[in-house]
Amino acid sequence: MSEPMIALAAHLKAQGIDVIVSDEVTLKLNARHLPDAEIANAADLIIAVGGDGTMLHAARLAAGSDVPLLGINRGRLGFLADVMPADMLPKLDQILAGEFSRETRLMLKARLIENDGNIHEALALNDVVIQRWETGRMVDFETRVDGCYINTHSGDGLIVATPTGSTAYALSCGGPIIEPRLDAVVLVPICPHTLSDRPIVIPSSQEIEVRLVDRADLQAEVAVDGHSLGWLTETSRLLISAADTRISLIHPPEYEYYGILRSKLHWGRNNRMRQAMDLDED
Amino acid sequence: MSEPMIALAAHLKAQGIDVIVSDEVTLKLNARHLPDAEIANAADLIIAVGGDGTMLHAARLAAGSDVPLLGINRGRLGFLADVMPADMLPKLDQILAGEFSRETRLMLKARLIENDGNIHEALALNDVVIQRWETGRMVDFETRVDGCYINTHSGDGLIVATPTGSTAYALSCGGPIIEPRLDAVVLVPICPHTLSDRPIVIPSSQEIEVRLVDRADLQAEVAVDGHSLGWLTETSRLLISAADTRISLIHPPEYEYYGILRSKLHWGRNNRMRQAMDLDED
Amino acid sequence: MSEPMIALAAHLKAQGIDVIVSDEVTLKLNARHLPDAEIANAADLIIAVGGDGTMLHAARLAAGSDVPLLGINRGRLGFLADVMPADMLPKLDQILAGEFSRETRLMLKARLIENDGNIHEALALNDVVIQRWETGRMVDFETRVDGCYINTHSGDGLIVATPTGSTAYALSCGGPIIEPRLDAVVLVPICPHTLSDRPIVIPSSQEIEVRLVDRADLQAEVAVDGHSLGWLTETSRLLISAADTRISLIHPPEYEYYGILRSKLHWGRNNRMRQAMDLDED
Amino acid sequence: MSEPMIALAAHLKAQGIDVIVSDEVTLKLNARHLPDAEIANAADLIIAVGGDGTMLHAARLAAGSDVPLLGINRGRLGFLADVMPADMLPKLDQILAGEFSRETRLMLKARLIENDGNIHEALALNDVVIQRWETGRMVDFETRVDGCYINTHSGDGLIVATPTGSTAYALSCGGPIIEPRLDAVVLVPICPHTLSDRPIVIPSSQEIEVRLVDRADLQAEVAVDGHSLGWLTETSRLLISAADTRISLIHPPEYEYYGILRSKLHWGRNNRMRQAMDLDED
Repeated sequence: MSEPMIALAAHLKAQGIDVIVSDEVTLKLNARHLPDAEIANAADLIIAVGGDGTMLHAARLAAGSDVPLLGINRGRLGFLADVMPADMLPKLDQILAGEFSRETRLMLKARLIENDGNIHEALALNDVVIQRWETGRMVDFETRVDGCYINTHSGDGLIVATPTGSTAYALSCGGPIIEPRLDAVVLVPICPHTLSDRPIVIPSSQEIEVRLVDRADLQAEVAVDGHSLGWLTETSRLLISAADTRISLIHPPEYEYYGILRSKLHWGRNNRMRQAMDLDED
Repeated sequence: MSEPMIALAAHLKAQGIDVIVSDEVTLKLNARHLPDAEIANAADLIIAVGGDGTMLHAARLAAGSDVPLLGINRGRLGFLADVMPADMLPKLDQILAGEFSRETRLMLKARLIENDGNIHEALALNDVVIQRWETGRMVDFETRVDGCYINTHSGDGLIVATPTGSTAYALSCGGPIIEPRLDAVVLVPICPHTLSDRPIVIPSSQEIEVRLVDRADLQAEVAVDGHSLGWLTETSRLLISAADTRISLIHPPEYEYYGILRSKLHWGRNNRMRQAMDLDED
Repeated sequence: MSEPMIALAAHLKAQGIDVIVSDEVTLKLNARHLPDAEIANAADLIIAVGGDGTMLHAARLAAGSDVPLLGINRGRLGFLADVMPADMLPKLDQILAGEFSRETRLMLKARLIENDGNIHEALALNDVVIQRWETGRMVDFETRVDGCYINTHSGDGLIVATPTGSTAYALSCGGPIIEPRLDAVVLVPICPHTLSDRPIVIPSSQEIEVRLVDRADLQAEVAVDGHSLGWLTETSRLLISAADTRISLIHPPEYEYYGILRSKLHWGRNNRMRQAMDLDED
Repeated sequence: MSEPMIALAAHLKAQGIDVIVSDEVTLKLNARHLPDAEIANAADLIIAVGGDGTMLHAARLAAGSDVPLLGINRGRLGFLADVMPADMLPKLDQILAGEFSRETRLMLKARLIENDGNIHEALALNDVVIQRWETGRMVDFETRVDGCYINTHSGDGLIVATPTGSTAYALSCGGPIIEPRLDAVVLVPICPHTLSDRPIVIPSSQEIEVRLVDRADLQAEVAVDGHSLGWLTETSRLLISAADTRISLIHPPEYEYYGILRSKLHWGRNNRMRQAMDLDED
């Protein structure tokens, strides 16, 4: 239970707003507790206080409902948690007064289908990651889109990321940034053995299938927004497609996607000018 | 005038098809010559014989018309010229008999607007490239989409590529592969000074603006599919948007986009199996 | 027991050469068996038949002795196993007759020092890899050389590779190729969170230290040439330095390091010419 | 003539030190002017005030002499100009009192040998860059070390960088960072057509040769530390080897190479901790 949450709850309750918390330690907040599964039905707005990881968690709660998300970070701007704690209360009042921008983000549905017909299913706001967890071995896997064979890959695994996830793990693995309004998904191989095995951006309307090949003793873990969904083995297969519903994000009215990128990636005018100075001769 | 062109012209004329050539040396082909600008109006199908560069040239001829393009390569498969010369005649007959797949590809319109109002305009099937041509200097430029500031870049320049162009120069500069059905454009910085200045994929419906900044003595050349459009200076600006029309490509019926990628990028099953062998212990 | 090994053993025995095998199934070979630990003392030459993985295994047997290694691959050229099976017998006779080139390769010594003073130690011909094995979490670690702090990294881990290992896993993670005669080691971060966290090449005379930071619950596995050495935790530390001895490799006289690179990485003249054709216009 | 230079000259003259300037506007400084070519013979220490570009210029003046270089930047830390203007005077006094660290840096000698025997020669502290300057064309060139063929490359060109230059243009093109004490040179292809055409680090004792291939109409400019040396054509060749002498750099006693890297590349502890916060859940 963090200081910002306490201040936030008090501020909202003072306005007569019903505050529900998913956290069990609700005493300090003088707020109503509901289990995770009931939050989306009961709330008009979900406020996540923390980092981008907290936003991913909140997205799982909100998925499938129309309840929008608002992210408040704790000290440092996130890609998703874009309200600074210092501005939190005035920004929130502005939003409650109807001044905000709203956007929706693509989510992915991952289905891990086992040999015996068992299906493990989960939604991702960022990414579905297939990754080997065995020292000194590569994993070999095949990718298909809408049934059409793409490639057989060797390496540490594969990231299937939404535009939202393109600035998370996928970026560390050499993937491009994808503007969130684009209905696209990117397949980013992780440390691929073949140097020409490069990221591919495809329409989100296509279904991606991933299967392991050849080695009966290998397996790869499937993680959805950082949470394990299960293991891909030689006899199972993983299907990834756009989820039926999208998630809604609420931003303060001055929100700009590229402004967040500039801040997070050290981009922009000032940065450039200093660098120009480094290389200029007198 | 190449051997394949002679064989092709003869084969078509034998079927009573009117053969028009853009090349001036038409005697050998016993074919009609028309200047480049009239080809699209007069033809039902444009066949380009050569490499991908020839296809780019043919795309400029066909742009704005509905006349589709067919590409025959000379010895090695291209990303665009995907009929092998050995198969040329039977494939062509198949296509003339109506058995083919047809797809359209996004083209870009580049407009270089000078201070005095002069506008230089051209269409690109692959890419619009802004590049410094001066030893030992970086170029500094700003990018905007639909009027919204993205970033100020320092480096050798910028590639704005279509999905078709994503496997050309943009790939050498670290850009992703983009599936041609996606209505997207990728901005790929060329050798950027800032390591976090990464490729960005955006919807093709957005207008991109590029301007130089700060240094009155620098300029950058703007090239459209490899042909110079003019120079970007401190007082001019470059606008890039989706062209009003798309280009149509004709392929043999068994054409597969990913099959071309696998062939050109040394991907696929066999490649993987050999590599697996390299690292396996006995 | 593979066909090449049987042919090889027979060929050597026919010349009166004492053949020792590390493999336990020695009957077919009519050869002497010795346990791994005794091979280096008893042999004048160790022949590894397999892929590069087999060569890494043989290097562990030979390490610390002067016994050189010869690598015979099984069907496809390796970076280390550079004699093709088809040429095996004549090449071997040439080598036995004294016609060969001999080179030595740097090996690394990894020491994992636990809180209680326990030390796990091993030699690497390719690399020492520190890698997180936990879904959805990054590992944070600090690097030092000769006691001097380099950086604090976040990501999937770190590869410390010899020149020999620079063309193995390190290459997949964005590391450079290092010519084997250079007494250097490269530190390659694996999928680093910070895009400016780039490979660093340092003299092999320096001692590298790696420690985890901050999160008591995280650990990272340390693997030496693909074999687990143990776990790096918040209270242990990993020291990596040049091993006291180098390994000797025997090659056929016509061996060329860059020839192997060209073959393995699809480099060279022919490749270029085909590509030039792709882009040329007529 | 900048403010720091005026302050610096006054400070030194007040101590009775003979101040020589290469700049022609010497009146304000009340200092002696000498042409560039005579500076190294007359001075005991060369102080460069500006950015890294100014340091490269000073290195050309000092090359071949034993006169060491000290770099004072103008507002932002450089890789080479590592004294901040605010600290300039006390640091300089410390250095004049004998408290400093001195290191030497490898320089390269580039020789462009034309068909008619003409030789253009220059020394590089950072890099020798071979680069095409023609819209829409790749340049094809072959590399050799000590007469041994490495590869035939297609792309925008090649950077041959010293360890000092490894953090300049080479870093933007995907090259590794090389610790300055390593006697090594890195060959970094610029936007290579072949994705497996990767940076190679070799001992600086080897002579590198670069030649164009195949296309009579293409040429590439050769630039040494950003200054044009001439044009590489089909009939000329470029030889690059370690220069006979190294350059000496003077640093304040607390200088640390990795400290400079951390500052310039946004590395280090604080950076990591903020990022960890971004991804942590509560």
